Amino acid sequence: MPTLREVGEFEAIRLLTHARGRARGDEAAGVVAGPGDDAAVLRVDPGDDLIATTDAFVEGRHYLPAWLTPAEVGARLAAANLSDLAAMAARPRWALLSIGVRAGHDMDALLALQRGASAALAAEGAAIVGGNLAAVDGAEWWSLTLLGAAPRGRAWTRHGARPGDLLAVTGSPGRAGAGLRIATREDRIARAPEWATLLDAWLRPRPRVAFALALAPSRAVTAAIDISDGLAGDLSRLCEASGVGCAIEAATWPPDPLLERAAKALGVTAGALRVAPSDDYELALAVDPAGRAACEEAARARGVPLAFVGRFTDSPGACVVLGPGGEAPLGDAGFDHFAADR
Amino acid sequence: MPTLREVGEFEAIRLLTHARGRARGDEAAGVVAGPGDDAAVLRVDPGDDLIATTDAFVEGRHYLPAWLTPAEVGARLAAANLSDLAAMAARPRWALLSIGVRAGHDMDALLALQRGASAALAAEGAAIVGGNLAAVDGAEWWSLTLLGAAPRGRAWTRHGARPGDLLAVTGSPGRAGAGLRIATREDRIARAPEWATLLDAWLRPRPRVAFALALAPSRAVTAAIDISDGLAGDLSRLCEASGVGCAIEAATWPPDPLLERAAKALGVTAGALRVAPSDDYELALAVDPAGRAACEEAARARGVPLAFVGRFTDSPGACVVLGPGGEAPLGDAGFDHFAADR
Repeated sequence: MPTLREVGEFEAIRLLTHARGRARGDEAAGVVAGPGDDAAVLRVDPGDDLIATTDAFVEGRHYLPAWLTPAEVGARLAAANLSDLAAMAARPRWALLSIGVRAGHDMDALLALQRGASAALAAEGAAIVGGNLAAVDGAEWWSLTLLGAAPRGRAWTRHGARPGDLLAVTGSPGRAGAGLRIATREDRIARAPEWATLLDAWLRPRPRVAFALALAPSRAVTAAIDISDGLAGDLSRLCEASGVGCAIEAATWPPDPLLERAAKALGVTAGALRVAPSDDYELALAVDPAGRAACEEAARARGVPLAFVGRFTDSPGACVVLGPGGEAPLGDAGFDHFAADR
Repeated sequence: MPTLREVGEFEAIRLLTHARGRARGDEAAGVVAGPGDDAAVLRVDPGDDLIATTDAFVEGRHYLPAWLTPAEVGARLAAANLSDLAAMAARPRWALLSIGVRAGHDMDALLALQRGASAALAAEGAAIVGGNLAAVDGAEWWSLTLLGAAPRGRAWTRHGARPGDLLAVTGSPGRAGAGLRIATREDRIARAPEWATLLDAWLRPRPRVAFALALAPSRAVTAAIDISDGLAGDLSRLCEASGVGCAIEAATWPPDPLLERAAKALGVTAGALRVAPSDDYELALAVDPAGRAACEEAARARGVPLAFVGRFTDSPGACVVLGPGGEAPLGDAGFDHFAADR
């Protein structure tokens, strides 16, 4: 298997472009001209807004090569971006992949990574239509820009939550963070089968695109955010944008015996895991009380766990948990990639 | 001046978002929702295609910190992307900036770099509407995705050149490459004032966006390419895409005494510099002979040097130079970032 250096830049780009394949039914998919020119030519449907996000992974920081195949790294990078579009109720359409790799990188591994990203994007209807290949000496990186579409003026944002709206959360936040903590423990308990589900939550997240798209037409959702920096931090950002507060009712949160077992093994509480920094590509939603049934129906139809765990309040900036012991602040401000203790 | 680590990720993102400013007349500029949500919401004008490109700079490879201020690095990154849109005759609109920086990076320098990119983009009508901030340990990198617009079906591509079309080139290709070679010589001749113009060509390129936009409505251009990988390589890629060949008539190429002086100092020929790998963000155009006057008028109006230096031929893949000594192949295949000798 040749390295990138042996293959050469232009042949590598040709191989990457070829491996991407063409979007299925290019014209139908709005791809007027894909890779192979100075830029891609794309066609947004009339009546749609364009939704654009970008997210990057750095080797050793956002992914640990020992835990993921190249294809899984690609899929996870796609998931991180797809989750941002899910939080906007946007239909994923086109992606551009900017890569920084060492010249000694195995070409097949590089192609596998891109194929992993392509497949994860294709599963949600999007295709890679362009990219860039740069050489690096140190850690490799992968930056994906994802473009999507939403009916004009109908994309979800962070700023529409109103006091009295319900707080709903998909999945079981905290699982990805628990998986990471277990994986990086020195006692290597991660290889025990009982933790496989948590490791999957960390390594192979499933963004909630289809659920969001099924739910959006109901107009039940007044605000939304992806909680991949941790529920406490991201929920506080939604509250800040909306000028509201929120109160989580601890008793309404469905139990997660697996997370509780992990918390015990890790010497923390399940509640702390739920709100702490975690790589959960899940959504927190503000829901009009009249739209609760529509949310539950969309979740059921898509097989997405959805829990109503609190309400938004008229106390701007105050995010609290109401538990048996009274009221407590929700927690810290989310994961800081530049914190000194990393 | 605090470092990124001292400022913290979320405050750094706030500062970067704030420094970007809002696009002038957001609604008019098609920015429905800019930074501060999971994704940006943008509005493509009806009747326009969306044009998308991405390009990245890696510290020490695409820029040498000793030669550029942070603001100039940002401007040059913007120029690299703007030049791709110029080659498509697309109007620059929106950009997303994905950054990988060390935690010890000075926050003011980071803001200066982004301001440099913002200003260069704003000069051509585009605004940064989103981004990502990642931490790295080694070389820093900056990946920009630039979105533009062109009237539906009217973007220039590489594949429309026909035998008999004229070959036109903007600027004076080779100057940027000469500037780089002079700058990296051990005898430090680069500090001599006589080379300032060449160093500027390398360090502070001016993409040909306004010229391309002025020229596009004439329909004189049948194919176009940005020649930032070197004229020989990029021209051969245009010929390959169009299924044509090309013949440069050496005698028609306007003399460039400065480039000739540099060639002498570097021990090469000016002709070699013109076609060799070079960072010239210039355009090579295939022009319908009937459109020559329109090209010359657009170039005059925008103050862009434009030379007609040859023709496209019906010999697919053959790119030759017709000189006093007869016919010679155009040259090598452009710059390979992964070549073993770097």
